[in-house]
Amino acid sequence: MKNRVITISREFGSGGRTIGKRVAEKLGIPCYDNELLKKIAEKSGFQESYIRDVGEYAFGGFLSNAFSHRGSGPNNADYLWKIQYKLISELAEKGPCVIVGRCADYILKDKADCLKVFIHADVAFRAERIVKVYGQREQSPEQRIRDKDKRRAAYHRFYTDMKWGHAQNYDLTLNSGTLGVDQCIEIIRSL
Amino acid sequence: MKNRVITISREFGSGGRTIGKRVAEKLGIPCYDNELLKKIAEKSGFQESYIRDVGEYAFGGFLSNAFSHRGSGPNNADYLWKIQYKLISELAEKGPCVIVGRCADYILKDKADCLKVFIHADVAFRAERIVKVYGQREQSPEQRIRDKDKRRAAYHRFYTDMKWGHAQNYDLTLNSGTLGVDQCIEIIRSL
Repeated sequence: MKNRVITISREFGSGGRTIGKRVAEKLGIPCYDNELLKKIAEKSGFQESYIRDVGEYAFGGFLSNAFSHRGSGPNNADYLWKIQYKLISELAEKGPCVIVGRCADYILKDKADCLKVFIHADVAFRAERIVKVYGQREQSPEQRIRDKDKRRAAYHRFYTDMKWGHAQNYDLTLNSGTLGVDQCIEIIRSL
Repeated sequence: MKNRVITISREFGSGGRTIGKRVAEKLGIPCYDNELLKKIAEKSGFQESYIRDVGEYAFGGFLSNAFSHRGSGPNNADYLWKIQYKLISELAEKGPCVIVGRCADYILKDKADCLKVFIHADVAFRAERIVKVYGQREQSPEQRIRDKDKRRAAYHRFYTDMKWGHAQNYDLTLNSGTLGVDQCIEIIRSL
């Protein structure tokens, strides 16, 4: 088996999580997404919801918050980053798996047997999908998408040297809106 | 058939041209690459080599040349762009085909039945490949790559609003270095 680990980065609402889960099912290997949060929670003592938010909300306002809390050494986000880094490296060593989000693409960037995938789609497709999957919220779906993507990109950029969504960082990027979720699953599985 | 036209943008030396040609062969449809240059030459009266260079060398030095020649209305590059735009639109109307380079991804961006692909690879892979395919030159392969990519990106950016190599602009991006040229061909063909 050439690609032992598959990492999936994704725009909010693009179906990346679903794709990761179903690829893992088809290949009979574990998919770490919420499981990863649970493990980080166990190791760190923080609650899962807090850890999830650190990946997104600690980096609100396009890094402004992140920088405003700087200056006095490492903060909670840095502490969690270290645990996450170690955990993802260990999981990748343990055996074939799919890892969704959490900068696994960067953490495993020098592993030759890692397939790095980015899933994206246009805003209209994602807006429809997030309402279907997560329900309506007070914010419009378009606002939620802009907000989440900004935070994810900022988090990613802060802890890595990579630009989120740049083709050059990945082995494969797929537009789930035009290709369809099923076709994305099939392509990744075939690799 | 869902995707009637396949456009392939590519980094220099990534094998995008070879991939385009072989996908077209497998699907039994035409591949426009040098043929496109010939057609533009016929329509414009310019020589093929001049047209090829306009796509790359008129945009040397990171757009500086392009801007320095501005100010007195459209130039040759603008004239050729118009011919190219019309020609690519007509070819896409005519029937299924593969089009390599020449901003076809942008020109056909609103066509729903167009599969937009970007092929890239790391510099080491491309350096080895260009020496094999095009032979040694005075410039080092790494310099040739940097130079060509810069010019292609600048040309693309000047005539389109799209950022070259951004996953979001494509249906599919593939790293031919890690996936291999054959696997890239197979994925595109399957779509």
